[in-house]
Amino acid sequence: MTRPADTVSESRQWDRLMTLARLGAIPGDGVNRPCLSPLDRAARRQVIAWAREIGAEVSIDDAANLFIRRAGSDPDAAPVLTGSHMDSQPEGGRFDGIYGVIAGLEAITALHDAGIVTRRPIEVVAWTNEEGGRFAPGCMGSMAWAGHTPLSAWAAVRDPAGITFGAALAEHLAAEADLPRRPLGSRPHAYLEAHIEQGPMLEAAGIDVGVVTGIQGSRWFSVTITGASAHAGTAPVGTRQDPVQDMLRAIAALNALTADPTDTLRFTVGRIDVLPNTSNTVASQVRFSIDLRHPDRAILLRTGDAIAATITAALKTCRAEVQEHFHAIPVRVAPPVVETVAAAAIACGHRAMRLPSGAFHDAQFVVPIAPTGMLFVPSRAGISHNPAEYTAPAQLAAGTRVLAESLARLAS
Amino acid sequence: MTRPADTVSESRQWDRLMTLARLGAIPGDGVNRPCLSPLDRAARRQVIAWAREIGAEVSIDDAANLFIRRAGSDPDAAPVLTGSHMDSQPEGGRFDGIYGVIAGLEAITALHDAGIVTRRPIEVVAWTNEEGGRFAPGCMGSMAWAGHTPLSAWAAVRDPAGITFGAALAEHLAAEADLPRRPLGSRPHAYLEAHIEQGPMLEAAGIDVGVVTGIQGSRWFSVTITGASAHAGTAPVGTRQDPVQDMLRAIAALNALTADPTDTLRFTVGRIDVLPNTSNTVASQVRFSIDLRHPDRAILLRTGDAIAATITAALKTCRAEVQEHFHAIPVRVAPPVVETVAAAAIACGHRAMRLPSGAFHDAQFVVPIAPTGMLFVPSRAGISHNPAEYTAPAQLAAGTRVLAESLARLAS
Repeated sequence: MTRPADTVSESRQWDRLMTLARLGAIPGDGVNRPCLSPLDRAARRQVIAWAREIGAEVSIDDAANLFIRRAGSDPDAAPVLTGSHMDSQPEGGRFDGIYGVIAGLEAITALHDAGIVTRRPIEVVAWTNEEGGRFAPGCMGSMAWAGHTPLSAWAAVRDPAGITFGAALAEHLAAEADLPRRPLGSRPHAYLEAHIEQGPMLEAAGIDVGVVTGIQGSRWFSVTITGASAHAGTAPVGTRQDPVQDMLRAIAALNALTADPTDTLRFTVGRIDVLPNTSNTVASQVRFSIDLRHPDRAILLRTGDAIAATITAALKTCRAEVQEHFHAIPVRVAPPVVETVAAAAIACGHRAMRLPSGAFHDAQFVVPIAPTGMLFVPSRAGISHNPAEYTAPAQLAAGTRVLAESLARLAS
Repeated sequence: MTRPADTVSESRQWDRLMTLARLGAIPGDGVNRPCLSPLDRAARRQVIAWAREIGAEVSIDDAANLFIRRAGSDPDAAPVLTGSHMDSQPEGGRFDGIYGVIAGLEAITALHDAGIVTRRPIEVVAWTNEEGGRFAPGCMGSMAWAGHTPLSAWAAVRDPAGITFGAALAEHLAAEADLPRRPLGSRPHAYLEAHIEQGPMLEAAGIDVGVVTGIQGSRWFSVTITGASAHAGTAPVGTRQDPVQDMLRAIAALNALTADPTDTLRFTVGRIDVLPNTSNTVASQVRFSIDLRHPDRAILLRTGDAIAATITAALKTCRAEVQEHFHAIPVRVAPPVVETVAAAAIACGHRAMRLPSGAFHDAQFVVPIAPTGMLFVPSRAGISHNPAEYTAPAQLAAGTRVLAESLARLAS
């Protein structure tokens, strides 16, 4: 029997990824392909052309999510859905997001080449605006599709050039008016998203495929510490209310709060803004960000809830205000999908390990709608959101073999 | 006998300061009067008009330093020089600099009103571009006058609008071509500059006048800590090279290095720039500034020389580069001038205390040329370089009485 994995083509998939990487190429092998831009449209047109080579049907919904459908033998059966996104970070790489779309296309092309007809249809989706790089927040396409948030909520969001999301979406839909329009939302039998890991675990362990066990939860805070501006030459250190020094105390206390011997909890201060930010003036105010993530809901809640009091107790001379502006609870994926992927990896002869996802993905918004899973391929040095992002052609092909085998099993 | 202090007019001096504060007034009682601007020229014209009311001679040098001379009885005697500057910070106050010019003018006006003729001439100077707000660095006028740096060194320095210092100076000199031109440099008998304290010491001690014992030295460093960017959700904390965390370690070590039970050493981190400065990315690089000041040369040298090694020893995962980009040794003022000011304060019935200057002043460039001193009046809450800068009319008058008495003694 021919397995779908046998007809996955490493070179075709790589060539397609490299073809798309030229649309928005930036120095250092990077990609800048903003959602709903002419580059995004050119990439979608290319994908549509490849889909039509195998007779797949193409449609689009009101959020400009693009669907490529390979029919199954039972026209009434709910489809198996796979895919990811095609937009990139402003200084992004060649694989984040687009790999999941091209891997899905390669999987149904492999089924086509092998002459396998599944019972259920298989649909490959390219979700609109996962990155949030042009219009914040990200994951608008999957959120709108899942009924999480109505599209109208973001109509007035502007990109740096002042163009609203509503206007960009309308322009895009007008440019793709030749594609059949489908309603937002559906009830797939299962959803399986392939993605690069964006972390170092698979590479470090020498593993081909990661079977994702869940997406960790996140809590984002912004902290404002207010002191009093003073002349760096004249104000005695003992009289100062220096928010830079109190920020040091606060972060040191947060380091202690978030210390985790298992190194599972992620605590990051990635943004610091000082006012007035001049070398010879004691600052009047400092703002910094906190990004806290953990796969366990109870730990995430307990740790996040302690942040404000920890900061307040650490300050010596200033006052602090702590605002939580994002809270996503940990996401559980569907055990049957996890087991299917794990079994498919064994069937394909690829080494797999289970791990949680550290990053957000469209998949987390699909969880309430359908049994959902993800599979990861290794990221060199864990680097992503960066032109240096890299996964070798053979590693990408391994992931796609497991994806194709998994989709065939889920669609049988 | 009439003392010059008796004819110092609190209201005239205050009215003059408020008249000048309208030239460049900004919200919140602030002043933005860039050097060599039309506003600067209007302020100078006003001061010249007041000077001519008492028959003083006005002249200007190649650096546009403005001199107002009240003749003495001995035309061959070296003059006593006093003054400060008339330009302001972009968001400055009503007293920084301009007080020293108006106090000097008030002092010679008081002598005029009292009918006192000193043996030596007394000259009031307004130095060009002390603040460096329009053209960096500051103190160009006093540096050029003192032969510290030739004017030509700054000819190509541009303001934010692209105008060169050379062009602005030429335009200004052309507009003031009616004033007699005097050569750069002279050999005054003494120099005494009045200024607001720009620190909290006098107010906190309830003292009228500060007798400046020296200007502390400064060393400015910029520190670059380079780590590796990573995804805040996927990179385990233990694998990160996070320059924000290493900056914390570095500043904590510097706090220990600069700890001073006498609270004389000033250590300030006022500027922090994080790259890429996004909340969900571990930073790749952090830059921060160090401003170190102390009145004692040996302590300043020893502490500053230890900075790079202290930082390097503190880092855990990143590498640091430390650059020193400014080094001013502590300035000693002339004991006879200090004693004259202290005695004048007693004669005027004002409380005086001795203190070092924490800020830079034109006076430090006059030190190699002539016996130099400074006197300070209190700054409310130590605030300066800010629209909230304030010294009460009576406090300004007290300082001017001591200045007038001191100038009369130095010129006798």
